[in-house]
Amino acid sequence: MLSSPYLTREGLATAREHLKGQVKLTPVLSSQSLNQLVGAQVYFKAENFQKVGAFKFRGAMHALAVLDPEERARGVLTHSSGNHAQALALAARQYGVPAWIVMPKNAPRVKREAVAGYGAEIVLCEPTLKARESTAAEVQARTGAAFIHPYNDPRIIAGQATASLELIEQQPGLEIVMAPVGGGGLLSGTALAMHYFAPQIPIFAAEPQGADDAFRSLQSGSIQPSTDPQTIADGLLTSLGDWTFPLIQKHVEQILTVSEENILKALKLIFERLKMVVEPSGAVPLAAILEYPERFAGKSVGLIVSGGNVDLAKLGEWFKPE
Amino acid sequence: MLSSPYLTREGLATAREHLKGQVKLTPVLSSQSLNQLVGAQVYFKAENFQKVGAFKFRGAMHALAVLDPEERARGVLTHSSGNHAQALALAARQYGVPAWIVMPKNAPRVKREAVAGYGAEIVLCEPTLKARESTAAEVQARTGAAFIHPYNDPRIIAGQATASLELIEQQPGLEIVMAPVGGGGLLSGTALAMHYFAPQIPIFAAEPQGADDAFRSLQSGSIQPSTDPQTIADGLLTSLGDWTFPLIQKHVEQILTVSEENILKALKLIFERLKMVVEPSGAVPLAAILEYPERFAGKSVGLIVSGGNVDLAKLGEWFKPE
Repeated sequence: MLSSPYLTREGLATAREHLKGQVKLTPVLSSQSLNQLVGAQVYFKAENFQKVGAFKFRGAMHALAVLDPEERARGVLTHSSGNHAQALALAARQYGVPAWIVMPKNAPRVKREAVAGYGAEIVLCEPTLKARESTAAEVQARTGAAFIHPYNDPRIIAGQATASLELIEQQPGLEIVMAPVGGGGLLSGTALAMHYFAPQIPIFAAEPQGADDAFRSLQSGSIQPSTDPQTIADGLLTSLGDWTFPLIQKHVEQILTVSEENILKALKLIFERLKMVVEPSGAVPLAAILEYPERFAGKSVGLIVSGGNVDLAKLGEWFKPE
Repeated sequence: MLSSPYLTREGLATAREHLKGQVKLTPVLSSQSLNQLVGAQVYFKAENFQKVGAFKFRGAMHALAVLDPEERARGVLTHSSGNHAQALALAARQYGVPAWIVMPKNAPRVKREAVAGYGAEIVLCEPTLKARESTAAEVQARTGAAFIHPYNDPRIIAGQATASLELIEQQPGLEIVMAPVGGGGLLSGTALAMHYFAPQIPIFAAEPQGADDAFRSLQSGSIQPSTDPQTIADGLLTSLGDWTFPLIQKHVEQILTVSEENILKALKLIFERLKMVVEPSGAVPLAAILEYPERFAGKSVGLIVSGGNVDLAKLGEWFKPE
């Protein structure tokens, strides 16, 4: 198993210190009517209210914070079509250094605009992993920027861990903590944080059935690629990496896969009862409670809401009149 | 001018004591990207996260709290098509007493269901103020329930005042506080609270141009009825009352009227930047900042977001693809 000083108990505590005052201390929200409906006490750590609208800002700020100053001055680089792109762009701006973001041509307009708005340079490429990686390599060779992977990087994982560290202080007495899983940066950070700071709390993960590579990876004991994933939860399409997989294997109790129907139901419930705008990926943990109510009955459950970056034009499609 | 012990400085402080632990201490949210866009520091007191999804729960709980116990036992009654209906229904349930809610036949399904879900008895009537009032009188004669007006009642006004009392503690240094105005319960309570507890902060009100009866009332010096109001902000259709009008006349700096276009723009910004679900009425104060930017330039402005009860099926209409 790979090891890193960022992923020790001390490393996580230091990450939290680095991020104090740099990231928002997001609130924890709940709804009595929702709790009655699902038969559990559900507490939402609202990372949709985080800067750039997603937990990803934590990892990006932590990565910038721990870069060697000379290296940092040359700027940072990543490939991402999603929230990590915005997060790294804003984090670089906070540090006054350049950022290059490799994005697939078909990335949603709202995400391209947000990245550009944070002052990063966007480099478009074909919408394949291969094209992203080769384009990123070209940019790196040209600029000398530090490559910051969206999730498979201990600096990122340690940053994401800070959301659950806040959660357990804001809401003592949780009996389960659950996060969604895509590439596993948030999940592995959450699991590690609980391992060190709240070992009595089991960690569950929630994953769309249509993108169940993490579930299959745990079943088979080796990283299974995400091939042709089909889900509305577009933040969870990626495969685990060699940093995130072993941490998840070791510290996560179980990955629960959920139907698209329950993701949409959960999304609607969060808009309706919590009055929060979340992206479909952020509703996946609540979908797991809807899908497996017996696992959570009567329990106090903390969920990490990953983000709230949605194209508002999609809402009409998701919440069609009945 | 009418006077009431509930509307003294001590009355407001007592209201706050009554509501401690009974209503949610809602968070105050902000967005740097929104602030840059509008050129002011805007702090949103998020009453959309209040129980029943609106500030109205404060007034209803306060009214129940101060009712004589014998009177309270006979139950409460109101006519409302909106958030006050849900608020009174839940407040009555918290006190274990019956509630009768007179609602127009054409009230949105989601609101009827919510009221019924809180265990109140719904009495439907024609969608006119006259029909509401006569139906309410019939129910009162039959049941002996205490009539609790949605806004023109000092017990209600004192309850609504507590939102801004929290706001100025949560966000010190505000230079302006602004609330939307419909019947004026929230606005008069807010203005009175600031008068007693933060007299240095001027109070602005925001009102749709298509329902500008409060604006016209201040201009003319007497209550002008709201006739045929036309606005998406369906929580702001009512006219001022003899309790709310003089308080607003005395303590509100100015009423700013806003276009429907800016209400929709503000609504979209709140969904997109704050990641909050708000009802159109709740976006009206931000619309006033968009409409009169010079009044707010560089200022620290606290806005009361009135509520978040929207029919999700409407979102497609409001956020049409461009």
